[in-house]
Amino acid sequence: MVPLRETANSNMNGSATLDRIRVVLVRPSHPGNVGAAARAMKTMGVSRLALVQPRAFPHAEAHARASGATDVLEGASVWKSLPEALEGVVLAAGLSARRRELWLAQRSAREAARELVAAAGGGGEVALVFGTETSGLSNDDMRLCHLPVFIPANPEYSSLNLAAAVQVLCYELRQVAVEWQPPRVDCGEPATVDETEAMFAHLERSLGASGFLDPANPKRLMPRLRRMFGRVRLEREEVNILRGMLNAFKKVD
Amino acid sequence: MVPLRETANSNMNGSATLDRIRVVLVRPSHPGNVGAAARAMKTMGVSRLALVQPRAFPHAEAHARASGATDVLEGASVWKSLPEALEGVVLAAGLSARRRELWLAQRSAREAARELVAAAGGGGEVALVFGTETSGLSNDDMRLCHLPVFIPANPEYSSLNLAAAVQVLCYELRQVAVEWQPPRVDCGEPATVDETEAMFAHLERSLGASGFLDPANPKRLMPRLRRMFGRVRLEREEVNILRGMLNAFKKVD
Repeated sequence: MVPLRETANSNMNGSATLDRIRVVLVRPSHPGNVGAAARAMKTMGVSRLALVQPRAFPHAEAHARASGATDVLEGASVWKSLPEALEGVVLAAGLSARRRELWLAQRSAREAARELVAAAGGGGEVALVFGTETSGLSNDDMRLCHLPVFIPANPEYSSLNLAAAVQVLCYELRQVAVEWQPPRVDCGEPATVDETEAMFAHLERSLGASGFLDPANPKRLMPRLRRMFGRVRLEREEVNILRGMLNAFKKVD
Repeated sequence: MVPLRETANSNMNGSATLDRIRVVLVRPSHPGNVGAAARAMKTMGVSRLALVQPRAFPHAEAHARASGATDVLEGASVWKSLPEALEGVVLAAGLSARRRELWLAQRSAREAARELVAAAGGGGEVALVFGTETSGLSNDDMRLCHLPVFIPANPEYSSLNLAAAVQVLCYELRQVAVEWQPPRVDCGEPATVDETEAMFAHLERSLGASGFLDPANPKRLMPRLRRMFGRVRLEREEVNILRGMLNAFKKVD
């Protein structure tokens, strides 16, 4: 695995940080899971995959499940042991079921993502290590990891598919690495108070003419409608549409 | 789908809230994905699966991929259309690619999870809607959803596998639900999708009769009105008031 080239804007989108994170799958037994894990990684901008003693690799099913992430799959490195796969790593987090007897405090996926991204952002190589589909990481493998990580899950059924676990962890990594900016909401110009007040006056007249507004109790309906439209934060064009509708309804009469 | 029984400690672990969340898969084409989605749901304590026009269901591959979540798969309901699958739902979030031309501000997975859990915690039925593997939700399907949701992903490859997307969203739901405390909300009972859809149909008929809806270009006004009312999150009583207004305007004629 060669260090990936950093582009000028890589820090802006967190990719330089994500490029220093490797995902290590220890003894994966189903090629389909390896492909699906590659796809999960790429969707979150994580591209470095390391395989320790995969049962079958390369494999057609891995390619099929990788979908558009065959580049991640084809770039994967293969190792004989976990220590070799972790060479140069300054922080390794290993996925484990939630247990109490562990020698280190477990981190949730979110907490671990923060620590991994902080270390990778500081320039270090970090790793996220996953065990086999059936039994997870062995105690020996877990001892090579600095952080035991768990995915907060249903205590009655916490068995995530391997690729699904990779997806959740890589998702959390990306959320930390790439500070999400709220999108510019594509909305129109807001209506002013006088415009909405004119609309309410128009509405009240129309409702009076239609007979829907109870003259004996006019004070109940309008506050309800004001409360409803107040939640909308009407735009100018919407006020115009509403008034156009009221005029159209009136013409019927 | 009958409302699930709440146990004495259900609020403590968020399960009563998660029991009011249904995952809707619209026209899933691969049975394996349906099974993997069921597994993803169950690992996060979400158990109600609704399928709209699945290509093949039940199916052996779905069972195999569901692993220990065959109960979720076998309890799935099957529907002919999305409106039917959303009956009784007060808040529906639809997964979409990140786009700008949408009529409502998109929420990230995390933001949407907060809104869905708040609504479900308040006692409402909520839904998380996923489209087909290849093309996602159609515009018509998305119009039935109150919130467009996106999973912040690698802009160069954002194509999550269907079950992986279900995993990420259900994971976020659980993270919010297990820590969530119901707020005292001072509002009326929310309208369901079927109630608001009936109101829109009524509105469209009234506007057609009034001449305000341009028959040559009927597709422009209704989306604008849906966008506006979509921001309100109408309450049941408000829907009744609006329909009463439409009837009153009609009587003028």
